[in-house]
Amino acid sequence: MTSPFDRAMMQRCLTLARRAQGQTAPNPMVGAVIVQEGVIVGEGFHPGAGQPHAEVFALRQAGDRARGATIYVSLEPCNHYGRTPPCSEALIEAQVSNVIIGTIDPNPKVGGGGIARLKDAGIKVSVGVEEADCRRLNEAFFHRITHKRPFGILKYAMTLDGKIASQGGHSAWVTGTPARQRVHQLRGNCDAIIVGGNTVRNDNPHLTCHNHAAKNPLRVVMSRRLDLPPDARLWDVREAPTLVATESGVKPEFQDQLRDRGVEVIAYPQLTPSVVMADLYERGMMTVLWECGGVLAARALSEGMVQKVMAFIAPKLIGGDSAPTPLADLGFTQMTEALPLQHCQWHPIGEDLLLEGYL
Amino acid sequence: MTSPFDRAMMQRCLTLARRAQGQTAPNPMVGAVIVQEGVIVGEGFHPGAGQPHAEVFALRQAGDRARGATIYVSLEPCNHYGRTPPCSEALIEAQVSNVIIGTIDPNPKVGGGGIARLKDAGIKVSVGVEEADCRRLNEAFFHRITHKRPFGILKYAMTLDGKIASQGGHSAWVTGTPARQRVHQLRGNCDAIIVGGNTVRNDNPHLTCHNHAAKNPLRVVMSRRLDLPPDARLWDVREAPTLVATESGVKPEFQDQLRDRGVEVIAYPQLTPSVVMADLYERGMMTVLWECGGVLAARALSEGMVQKVMAFIAPKLIGGDSAPTPLADLGFTQMTEALPLQHCQWHPIGEDLLLEGYL
Repeated sequence: MTSPFDRAMMQRCLTLARRAQGQTAPNPMVGAVIVQEGVIVGEGFHPGAGQPHAEVFALRQAGDRARGATIYVSLEPCNHYGRTPPCSEALIEAQVSNVIIGTIDPNPKVGGGGIARLKDAGIKVSVGVEEADCRRLNEAFFHRITHKRPFGILKYAMTLDGKIASQGGHSAWVTGTPARQRVHQLRGNCDAIIVGGNTVRNDNPHLTCHNHAAKNPLRVVMSRRLDLPPDARLWDVREAPTLVATESGVKPEFQDQLRDRGVEVIAYPQLTPSVVMADLYERGMMTVLWECGGVLAARALSEGMVQKVMAFIAPKLIGGDSAPTPLADLGFTQMTEALPLQHCQWHPIGEDLLLEGYL
Repeated sequence: MTSPFDRAMMQRCLTLARRAQGQTAPNPMVGAVIVQEGVIVGEGFHPGAGQPHAEVFALRQAGDRARGATIYVSLEPCNHYGRTPPCSEALIEAQVSNVIIGTIDPNPKVGGGGIARLKDAGIKVSVGVEEADCRRLNEAFFHRITHKRPFGILKYAMTLDGKIASQGGHSAWVTGTPARQRVHQLRGNCDAIIVGGNTVRNDNPHLTCHNHAAKNPLRVVMSRRLDLPPDARLWDVREAPTLVATESGVKPEFQDQLRDRGVEVIAYPQLTPSVVMADLYERGMMTVLWECGGVLAARALSEGMVQKVMAFIAPKLIGGDSAPTPLADLGFTQMTEALPLQHCQWHPIGEDLLLEGYL
């Protein structure tokens, strides 16, 4: 049976793990806590790829007090030699007596191997404390491992009458300051942000975290015709890198101009949400934010490149017969065909409402 | 100072008052509770126009125990001879010693007169217990008195991507069963429902309460061209009455056909939301529900005929470049022009979300 103390310790692991949110790709976020006679004697989290795992930091802090102790760790300890030695061996060496795990690792290189190794060494192992929260923390990591694509989040802000801009395309601002700050934080938790040419032309966005996160994600512009302004905020790469994705042979001079300014340009034979996401996967990216308009959003959804929707709803009415809405054509004619969202949650953010759900 | 006991008694008045929700137009909903030595000795509510007021029912039940008692009443007692004698006189005659009032009556015929009369008779009077709730209960009544128009509620159901139907116009159903039942209840709390010709042609609705309320409201169809199907569910007036509002001289034969079936037809010189609402006001109606599509909704809003918005949001995505949205053109080009909603509240209803706010 799981005790309230076990749950509190696992929640502490999650809090520690989140300190590296947006920094760990392609690795998961992990937190660890070592408890000796009811007292925390070591804590740690994984700060990012190439750095030690959470368990290692916790063991270092605990020192000799790890012997006979219980370690809580939000994700199954690894059992393979990667950039660091396996954590299972470190735990055995430190002679901990009890390992309590939030959730197992879907990574085929781990696949229960860490647990088996610990049990073989005579250590008591239990799995599944605060499991739902532990899985949600690393939903992007699990998706990436399982589907070999980054986890896609579609984010949009709309009025209560379903518009993302006015009839004339004006969208500054749909939501209030707290919601926009929340978006800046969200960007910091992502590895890349994708927009289409329309967004660059209409909004000329920065797509940065505005100091709400440690790092800015890669800004990706998908544009088949490269019908883009010669001067856009995204072409200034001092604050954050920019990648323009287009098709082979389109406007080679403009491609060169962008490259001269430090923008990465990739010309694919055919530009689709899938090929861009495949490329971002190869770069080790874990979470990708779709901040695009309705046309590109519908294509990304149709190709299965969106796993989660974050819809900010502002309590205001703008109207407009042809004002843009969050999603263009998905090919559905009957309301019964609509894609349902699962595990929905809503949160008030300032005057606005954030509704989150999974496809 | 207001005590928790006072607040509890006023909330009891509100609960009693709500028993007649949708039945009282053009009168307010009122509840009354008489307390003698900490015990409720009489309760009452106003069941509808032409029937006794809440105080009268409570006094009848209390009998002699009203003498020296405290009466809680959610709205200032009336002081005028209308269809019933003034409640202020009845309270004086019953020799209550204390009158605790939720909110004063904005009706110019009452206007504090009830309170003055009670004080003149030596009765202690206090005003403003649970006042916000008491005002909200009768928001439609107060609006009607002040603006000489019914209180307009715009209700719509949309997907999370802001559509009220699919690209092809299919809308059955956007929301789940609990939300639709809530709409049936809501209809029972209203005196009339207005739709446009598009809704009749596309959805062929019943617009009844489906046994979720004591009475069905008047169903109003606004149609300038009378381009309406010869057979529609709304032309069957056995369950509920129907009024078709059009313009003078349009399709006289079709008008006659409708009248033959028991449908009331009114031809105005010019058909607008305002003239229809003025007519409904003259009929004593208090609350009118706009269940129309985006074009008529935008006209009603623009003419100030909507005071409250009730938006049901279903956590699903339908997509569609030209799928209908809740509101057509309001003439705004900048997002800063959008109409903000005040005092917003949201409630989960089944899988869906209801967001309510005031213009």
